[in-house]
Amino acid sequence: MITLYGIHPVLEALKKRPHAIKSIHLSRQSNDKNLKQISELARQHSINMRTSTPQDLRQLTNSSQHQGVAAETEPFPLSDIDDVITRVRSEQQRCFMLVLDCVQDPQNTGSLIRSAVCCGAQAVIFPKDRAAGLTASVAKASAGAIEHISMCRVVNIAATLEELRRNNIWVAGTVPQDGQSIYDFDLNIDLALVIGGEGPGMRRLVREKCDILLSVPMQSAFESLNAAVAGAVVMFEALRQRSINP
Amino acid sequence: MITLYGIHPVLEALKKRPHAIKSIHLSRQSNDKNLKQISELARQHSINMRTSTPQDLRQLTNSSQHQGVAAETEPFPLSDIDDVITRVRSEQQRCFMLVLDCVQDPQNTGSLIRSAVCCGAQAVIFPKDRAAGLTASVAKASAGAIEHISMCRVVNIAATLEELRRNNIWVAGTVPQDGQSIYDFDLNIDLALVIGGEGPGMRRLVREKCDILLSVPMQSAFESLNAAVAGAVVMFEALRQRSINP
Repeated sequence: MITLYGIHPVLEALKKRPHAIKSIHLSRQSNDKNLKQISELARQHSINMRTSTPQDLRQLTNSSQHQGVAAETEPFPLSDIDDVITRVRSEQQRCFMLVLDCVQDPQNTGSLIRSAVCCGAQAVIFPKDRAAGLTASVAKASAGAIEHISMCRVVNIAATLEELRRNNIWVAGTVPQDGQSIYDFDLNIDLALVIGGEGPGMRRLVREKCDILLSVPMQSAFESLNAAVAGAVVMFEALRQRSINP
Repeated sequence: MITLYGIHPVLEALKKRPHAIKSIHLSRQSNDKNLKQISELARQHSINMRTSTPQDLRQLTNSSQHQGVAAETEPFPLSDIDDVITRVRSEQQRCFMLVLDCVQDPQNTGSLIRSAVCCGAQAVIFPKDRAAGLTASVAKASAGAIEHISMCRVVNIAATLEELRRNNIWVAGTVPQDGQSIYDFDLNIDLALVIGGEGPGMRRLVREKCDILLSVPMQSAFESLNAAVAGAVVMFEALRQRSINP
């Protein structure tokens, strides 16, 4: 079980998988339209609702960011990478996947998932070890976006990149410097975009599996971009190119 | 006085305004090249160095993210908006400023400052009230980028936008939906880009001063982008357009 908290994570879970929710804890009656919708959806699905004090919620969620609501749910569903590839292929849409190689910070992980969903990506692939797990704080940082995308946990990122390549999906890694400019590379292809962890970036074995290394050009001696922001800039550039030549 | 913490905020402060630093607290001897550089620069500038335990640093900085280093410094220097406009005009470069209207979260504020610096913006304008102040946590979230850009605190954002317009600087606001696409608007102009606060966005009076409202097109029913990410995507699109037609 996992204790989601915050308005958007709970609301999106209610919309997407109400049967996975065991109980909802609310600390306040409110005219907030999202909190009202949470109450209504919980009633519709006969989910156990409890009133809790803000202090109880803080203790239950281990966070001060609960916004007056928490939900006890089953863990986030995981998708099988092979199933995702097969599905995307059968839909005949351009493939667009995000691969997180050891992104450790839950805030960055959630933010990258959120951007991936906004860009229409079909899946987020992340490793079993050395990465932020799918926790309530990741869900909060994603503003509930995590409910809207296939999440694939794999044992070995390098092996998965090999598999993607065998399926004719281009693997593009991102590096802070010295990669090809994202503006000079055709991103309107079947694409898996790899974002490396904060600090060290992609691991060597992962980097070696990439078909191309890409960088975001900057205009400053100070060229340090947050991993989540860099990832978002590349994903939105891919979306821009795709919308020009759909 | 302000107590900066974290490797990058302290290092960039040492590089940019060593005389504003009263003392440096280090919790460890390390082979980390950045921590070494901090020690060397502190010695060069005869800055008082103290050894502190991690617990002391945590108490001193009120944060667990101190990375073993803190610095007691004067507050961040502020720039006068008129001086900034005059300077930019005299340098005959394209104007590019970031305006934060009530961005409250220190993490978002720092992230936006960092992206602005990476994009070559000349100034960040923010209001005196209802906004994250220039705190140590903003500096940490900016990874020290805050030392590399003119920060202008103004009493009235709407009046400042009027002043920018009188100086032939275009004022572009950002809205989550229904604005003109950032890809269809020529951003290669003298530009002030306004980012609204988390949740409510720009205030009405600020929005009314904008020459144009812009949005980031998305490809998803889930169209909720973090303020810092949305701001970064617009800033990097401006930089892309400028690099095509410098």
